[in-house]
Amino acid sequence: MERTVIAALFADQEALSGQTITVCGWARTIRDMKTFGFIELNDGSCFKNLQVVMDANTLDNYKEIAGQNVGAALIVTGTVVLTPQAKQPLEVKAVSIAVEGPSAPDYPLQKKRHSVEFLRTIQHLRPRTNLFSAAFRVRSVAAHAIHCFFQDRGFVYAHTPIITAADCEGAGEMFQVTTLDLANVPMTEDGQVDYSQDFFGKKASLTVSGQLNAENFAMAFGNVYTFGPTFRAENSNTARHAAEFWMVEPEMAFADLNDYMNTAEDMIKYIIRFVMERCPDEMNFFNSFVDKGLKDRLEHVASSDFGRVSYTEAVELLKKVNDKFDYKVEWGCDLQTEHERYLTEQVFKKPVFVTDYPKEIKAFYMRQNDDGKTVAAADCLVPGIGEIIGGSQREERLDVLEARIRELGMNPEDYKYYCDLRRYGSCRHAGYGLGFERMVMYLTGIGNIRDVELHPRTVGNAEF
Amino acid sequence: MERTVIAALFADQEALSGQTITVCGWARTIRDMKTFGFIELNDGSCFKNLQVVMDANTLDNYKEIAGQNVGAALIVTGTVVLTPQAKQPLEVKAVSIAVEGPSAPDYPLQKKRHSVEFLRTIQHLRPRTNLFSAAFRVRSVAAHAIHCFFQDRGFVYAHTPIITAADCEGAGEMFQVTTLDLANVPMTEDGQVDYSQDFFGKKASLTVSGQLNAENFAMAFGNVYTFGPTFRAENSNTARHAAEFWMVEPEMAFADLNDYMNTAEDMIKYIIRFVMERCPDEMNFFNSFVDKGLKDRLEHVASSDFGRVSYTEAVELLKKVNDKFDYKVEWGCDLQTEHERYLTEQVFKKPVFVTDYPKEIKAFYMRQNDDGKTVAAADCLVPGIGEIIGGSQREERLDVLEARIRELGMNPEDYKYYCDLRRYGSCRHAGYGLGFERMVMYLTGIGNIRDVELHPRTVGNAEF
Repeated sequence: MERTVIAALFADQEALSGQTITVCGWARTIRDMKTFGFIELNDGSCFKNLQVVMDANTLDNYKEIAGQNVGAALIVTGTVVLTPQAKQPLEVKAVSIAVEGPSAPDYPLQKKRHSVEFLRTIQHLRPRTNLFSAAFRVRSVAAHAIHCFFQDRGFVYAHTPIITAADCEGAGEMFQVTTLDLANVPMTEDGQVDYSQDFFGKKASLTVSGQLNAENFAMAFGNVYTFGPTFRAENSNTARHAAEFWMVEPEMAFADLNDYMNTAEDMIKYIIRFVMERCPDEMNFFNSFVDKGLKDRLEHVASSDFGRVSYTEAVELLKKVNDKFDYKVEWGCDLQTEHERYLTEQVFKKPVFVTDYPKEIKAFYMRQNDDGKTVAAADCLVPGIGEIIGGSQREERLDVLEARIRELGMNPEDYKYYCDLRRYGSCRHAGYGLGFERMVMYLTGIGNIRDVELHPRTVGNAEF
Repeated sequence: MERTVIAALFADQEALSGQTITVCGWARTIRDMKTFGFIELNDGSCFKNLQVVMDANTLDNYKEIAGQNVGAALIVTGTVVLTPQAKQPLEVKAVSIAVEGPSAPDYPLQKKRHSVEFLRTIQHLRPRTNLFSAAFRVRSVAAHAIHCFFQDRGFVYAHTPIITAADCEGAGEMFQVTTLDLANVPMTEDGQVDYSQDFFGKKASLTVSGQLNAENFAMAFGNVYTFGPTFRAENSNTARHAAEFWMVEPEMAFADLNDYMNTAEDMIKYIIRFVMERCPDEMNFFNSFVDKGLKDRLEHVASSDFGRVSYTEAVELLKKVNDKFDYKVEWGCDLQTEHERYLTEQVFKKPVFVTDYPKEIKAFYMRQNDDGKTVAAADCLVPGIGEIIGGSQREERLDVLEARIRELGMNPEDYKYYCDLRRYGSCRHAGYGLGFERMVMYLTGIGNIRDVELHPRTVGNAEF
């Protein structure tokens, strides 16, 4: 079928003016004025609807079409008419309209405002609403921005494994992956689960981070990045946590903490510009209906330098206003979201990197600073979200790394491959993790992670 | 640290000629001629090594450097000298060389040809070899080609969920995902596993296909694609199967079987051209050392029309040479790899789509043809691999779909959301799945899936 997508109609309106074209899409509204009527048609190629004008004198099946329910799939052939005086720049005067698929009377998306809570119960249909149409297109465009950013800079995309037998990534609670029959788990003679009978011959889990694997590839390719799903089996029912989410984890050889921060800052600005340029209608929608001031804020971020402050300095700033916080701040404590948001929203009023955290609250692989107390870590905090990126320079010194592993009661043998990278041509290197859903929330102003994932997985919830 | 990557050196050699620059990388070889020497340095930014010339009169630490082992990480500052008469177009005359990280004497990648089987045991180091450097860069570039192809055509990238509670995708054996303690599985009173105590409150698995979810989004966005990991818990130990692999699954509304085949053919040609243009050194390497004739074959594929033949015609062609096959062909049988390869390698000598398979050997969601016997499915077969793409027009008629579900002894209630898409604005639509690893094998000539995955997961194997 020769068809024109609505995005192309709006893009090439001068060239198509007066032409007869065929468009396919779904009716968002149908208004029947008896002798004529209007259909707002959406085909998903862009945010905007196309106005179709139908005339009872022209269409044999006017009554059939006018009687269709919202959501019906229609194939419209008609003439493109530019309407510079009207609200919309053009309309299509229908010559013929065929019903490709009707929409049953109980179609749940009627023309009214539905709550996001209700829409989460019909996740297979919610992308047909303005909010989710905009959210998931921005998600797609932001994902492409990430690939373009890194590929243009020569980074190699690394598909690190999702299933891992390493129990030692240490970033959170893990889901187990198994083919054992849970009703009849085989046990060894000494009463342990007999994983030799499991698919991989050992206990396996879903990855919580591709970082340790990504380092393998950074030590060959120099600059690499992962972009894939990641899992946390944490029983936390918040608006910012999901059990399944996508992470971007760049890793750079011959790079230090400043190189990481410079790359991450460039990346965030690049994503913002890329999305604002390619999704103007969607961004206007978010700015009007979800988060007034969103566009100004993003433009400000894209054009200003991010703040940088050491953890020690940040603690001093926060202690001055300790009475504002549920959790009081003192040196050595982990920063809570309330502290992070205060720093980025009240103190800096823009994204800020907090650097050089106490080693006790950070992971074993982060490079120890000369003060013996802190590590070369940095988290990037953004207004409205808190932490959006965590990263560090990695410990490249074999002796320091092994000592830290032992100090934490872990076994260097479990990290043999990781330590090998320090035996054979070790070099300074750094990397970070961007929570992709948090980035999409930041770009759209949407406040709940369940509304930026297509089918979110959270405690007690794996529908669709 | 101000550094120049080796890829930029080769790209901008005229501009950099005579300049003093700093390069960071790993020594692939070090040749010590006593008063001078050569280092082949690789930094992963490109396939090629940089030749570094060192002179004992210039370098205070000549002996230290000349005594380094292969694999050492070095920081070289020196002058760029063009060498148009030599094998390599340029070299760097070292002014200073610092050892960033030495390489221990037992470094397993010595300068000799290692077997791929051995290299699979050191997966954290094998990307430092020519073969895997080329394979994983081509993999990265091919992945980007896929995103560019679809994004440029207005497809929305859909992150369909990895964890699914739907037991009904029907494409293969599934891995179970759980947080239950396997040593102590909670049971209900009637002796069943008590999944109400599991993380999601029900039994959950790893997805075998994002297609059914992708259809949700195609019915809103028109054209969508997935690109993510997929899992099969099949106990098959072949060179073409892995338990974890990446799939690309486009889904297109208002599209039929021909639209799918046209898109898939365009996509494969686009990927080939994209990779050949961006990875010339890697493709020359594969053509010389892995698969002689590879480049000619790919160029031929990129510039010729794919064959199209119905299953019924294909069976007639194959029956003529049934004595060649271990499995004899007759109408109704599923095609084996030996049959697929004969069709594409011997009969068509290029990629070919086989269309309209018997409905008994295809999935329930494929659109039934008017003959009552076949479905509007098509597999794309390529030389050297066999099936690389499977796809179909989907059954958009609610009554036909529900009848087929019942006919197969399944329960339409389990497919409520899927059937809803046929209740509310159903339309003809089609989609397909590309096994990404098979595409990389096809592009590189590499014969084993274990050598195109960074850390492959197969039966009994989840190392690294």
